[in-house]
Amino acid sequence: MRSMNYSMTRRNLLRGGTMLTASAFLSSTTSALAYDNHSTNSSPIRLGIASYTFRNFDADHLIGFMKELNTPYLNLKDVHLPMTPADQVAPRAAKFRDAGFKLTAAGTITFAKDEDDDIRMKFEYCKAAGIPLIIGAPTHQVLPRLEKFVKEYNIGVAIHNHGPEDKNFPSPLDVLAAVEKLDPRIGCCIDVGHTMRAGTDPVAAIRKAGPRVLDIHMKDLADGTKKESQVAVGDGVMPVPAIFKALIDIHYAGNVDLEYEIFPDNPMPGVIKSFAFMRGVLAGMGYKG
Amino acid sequence: MRSMNYSMTRRNLLRGGTMLTASAFLSSTTSALAYDNHSTNSSPIRLGIASYTFRNFDADHLIGFMKELNTPYLNLKDVHLPMTPADQVAPRAAKFRDAGFKLTAAGTITFAKDEDDDIRMKFEYCKAAGIPLIIGAPTHQVLPRLEKFVKEYNIGVAIHNHGPEDKNFPSPLDVLAAVEKLDPRIGCCIDVGHTMRAGTDPVAAIRKAGPRVLDIHMKDLADGTKKESQVAVGDGVMPVPAIFKALIDIHYAGNVDLEYEIFPDNPMPGVIKSFAFMRGVLAGMGYKG
Repeated sequence: MRSMNYSMTRRNLLRGGTMLTASAFLSSTTSALAYDNHSTNSSPIRLGIASYTFRNFDADHLIGFMKELNTPYLNLKDVHLPMTPADQVAPRAAKFRDAGFKLTAAGTITFAKDEDDDIRMKFEYCKAAGIPLIIGAPTHQVLPRLEKFVKEYNIGVAIHNHGPEDKNFPSPLDVLAAVEKLDPRIGCCIDVGHTMRAGTDPVAAIRKAGPRVLDIHMKDLADGTKKESQVAVGDGVMPVPAIFKALIDIHYAGNVDLEYEIFPDNPMPGVIKSFAFMRGVLAGMGYKG
Repeated sequence: MRSMNYSMTRRNLLRGGTMLTASAFLSSTTSALAYDNHSTNSSPIRLGIASYTFRNFDADHLIGFMKELNTPYLNLKDVHLPMTPADQVAPRAAKFRDAGFKLTAAGTITFAKDEDDDIRMKFEYCKAAGIPLIIGAPTHQVLPRLEKFVKEYNIGVAIHNHGPEDKNFPSPLDVLAAVEKLDPRIGCCIDVGHTMRAGTDPVAAIRKAGPRVLDIHMKDLADGTKKESQVAVGDGVMPVPAIFKALIDIHYAGNVDLEYEIFPDNPMPGVIKSFAFMRGVLAGMGYKG
């Protein structure tokens, strides 16, 4: 009995074949009963890393950190997978895959130019890397052209809201209004911290966005109005259990990627604390992470 | 909105008056509804520290660590509150109280001699320190004499089970059998790790012991049969949510004290991770820690 071990489970995930089992969706009824059998339900929430967290470290260090965190889910920033030279993108992406990781998204990638060449280069980059989703920061103007590429490449675009300072998309609600009539592969990367700072309840935003939620960037704030107040997840005001519950309710199939922007030269203590808290939340909800 | 901040709440607790609010008991029905109002129920589980965790550090370092962990609940080992000289016990205890801490228990204290003098000295020590509970390691023989002192001093004794190597009390079930007819202030300090290694389900033991659970020593094991396999809480096989659920169900009014025995020269990384996980579990169950 109790032979299922959190760490071992994650290690098995890293080895391959069974990763999809972690995404099986479970009802909240099942969750309520799970205490009685010591929480043996696989978690419907996949915890990953936005590699921007480790922007001051190279790819080898990133691989080491990911292994220490026991997660295979990686949202790669270009600092860890440069866009040029183009012929190096595929082998560099392969290095991460060979290390056991699943490349879930690339970005954040800016789309400031309403030009085919600029956009095509970025979709070719993701295609070469075998990455199915772009975390994007477009202008409103570029959206129709972006949609054309989403259809041509079958690569999604999750528009990342950046809070009150973002003149294009401060809140996921701004994203939703803009993408309503576009291809369903265009949606939101809800950054819960920037969302809260924009005055939008991240839980309500998730429930409203539903199938348009394509990615989550997770962080926490000691003060929901102040960017500089970022803390480890669990130490602030972010309603993490309600966020997870909302994601489960909308049958979210994407990832929850920690984007820990503080202490860039020594992020691991806060990252480890954040992961422990989030895994605890899932355990408390009746899931085995 | 969301002005309740985890850290601030704990800081307020440290300042005094409102500590008892944390012990309000909430039904599991309340817990199930708590997601909808973003988990504003105070936690019925009080997380503390068994200072044995910091045995290689002095009292000043212990105070610093406790403040970093934002918990006021302290189960003091004699390395941090020496039994002699007797006239120094009260002022040394006052130093911890002045730093904002609640001295919940002393120990583990061994009761190997069936002699009044030895036992009285240890009860006088707790009386001088104003500590209401001894975490005890007695022999079976000494129990009747121990009970006499429990009644005289109105200081409880929570018998700490030490696993298969313990010839007196390997499991809380051995404690329960021995204390059944004794004063209700004598009961169990259930060490969940040693309990599991003794082949007893800690959740079942908590439910069986009910009002005889006077303290919990929390830890986790990668392998439930191996003492050397201790890991940070959340990284092993310990059913933490089921343990918390059982404690809430029995209306447990004591503390859950982390006893992290590994890396004695650098315990904080694992202690911080353990606390983050346990606070996450409580958040996932609908409580605000």
